[in-house]
Amino acid sequence: MLIVHHLQRSQSERIVWLCEELGIPYELRTYQRDAKTLLAPPELQQLHPTQAAPVIQDGTTTLAESGAIVEYILTKYGKGKLTVPPTADNYADYLYFLHFANGYFQPALVGYSTVLRSGISRDDPSARFARRNFEQALRVLDDRLAKHTWLAGEEFTAADVMNVFTLTTARLFFPYRLAGYEGILGYLQRVSQREAYQTAMAKGDPGLIPLIHGDNPRPIRL
Amino acid sequence: MLIVHHLQRSQSERIVWLCEELGIPYELRTYQRDAKTLLAPPELQQLHPTQAAPVIQDGTTTLAESGAIVEYILTKYGKGKLTVPPTADNYADYLYFLHFANGYFQPALVGYSTVLRSGISRDDPSARFARRNFEQALRVLDDRLAKHTWLAGEEFTAADVMNVFTLTTARLFFPYRLAGYEGILGYLQRVSQREAYQTAMAKGDPGLIPLIHGDNPRPIRL
Repeated sequence: MLIVHHLQRSQSERIVWLCEELGIPYELRTYQRDAKTLLAPPELQQLHPTQAAPVIQDGTTTLAESGAIVEYILTKYGKGKLTVPPTADNYADYLYFLHFANGYFQPALVGYSTVLRSGISRDDPSARFARRNFEQALRVLDDRLAKHTWLAGEEFTAADVMNVFTLTTARLFFPYRLAGYEGILGYLQRVSQREAYQTAMAKGDPGLIPLIHGDNPRPIRL
Repeated sequence: MLIVHHLQRSQSERIVWLCEELGIPYELRTYQRDAKTLLAPPELQQLHPTQAAPVIQDGTTTLAESGAIVEYILTKYGKGKLTVPPTADNYADYLYFLHFANGYFQPALVGYSTVLRSGISRDDPSARFARRNFEQALRVLDDRLAKHTWLAGEEFTAADVMNVFTLTTARLFFPYRLAGYEGILGYLQRVSQREAYQTAMAKGDPGLIPLIHGDNPRPIRL
């Protein structure tokens, strides 16, 4: 059976959620971050050279990197669900937001947060570049979600599964507010009403109230 | 015909290279970075909300985000070339390195470079985290390439197309040395001998000597 190694309070929540949305059988193994370093514990690090979550095991295959895992699970077990076929009008939209999550949005958040806490001048070109990228990412999402129910269009897809973590749980580590981004906030309400999302969060991160509101909770110190 | 909008000295070299490897017809439109901000010029920014390269146009479709564009071109025009089928033993390896490029390696480089130039203490948890991620990325690549000709195995694939930019041209902006990473350096030699790579770089970035060696050239100031 597919084994999903899930580090609590991490992007591996995407994989738990994906399995719940697809309704496929999987064995969930959860890990907690090291209280001091916030890194994955040694037993999770040892599973794959990336030394980070998520990791899946499927027979003799061990795979890391959430984008790769999502594509693997969709191809092997998805039966065409949660994807958009190449013949559909919104195929490019689907691909764009699927790759936007880790290719633009998540690095932009981490980059900007690093700049903010570094003490670098906000007028430094690196700081301006980082801020521009992050605000641009939020604007792209907000504009899209003001006009569409889900990122690829009117149907929920894996593009949503990839992007939600950066809008929610990631704010525990890299705090930012979503006030004013009405498109995004309405979207997070819709996400939170999905039964598969509720089930995944309850199984994978019991005790964590999903961060679907605009304000931040007390952040975890990095 | 497929139009490839290519910003010189940028990750859009991946798309030019992919088209050359596939031998498909495309129209190349090149742009130069703004001399002061190093951002894409307005005429390129206006093409897509991301405001960055690469962007492709294909009929009425406009698409940004290099990972999405690579998947789009492979699906629409690739005829199965440069990919690994789900039935192959190295399918997971292919997916891992395909997504590793933008999901881990490139953000790790940008994050660590930002930390280095920020003046933040190298003992700060953010700095240690950024350094660890970047060194881990190079180790993962070096270990893999010490044992395999290409990232997915013995055949050249789109996973190579995605990762090489971060090992080469990206060093103009985020300098780092590759001395000691013999697996990576041997790999870059093999890349540089590919006719499609030579053609793509000559067409897209004439005058730029591909940065396949371990040392850095004089970096472009960001």
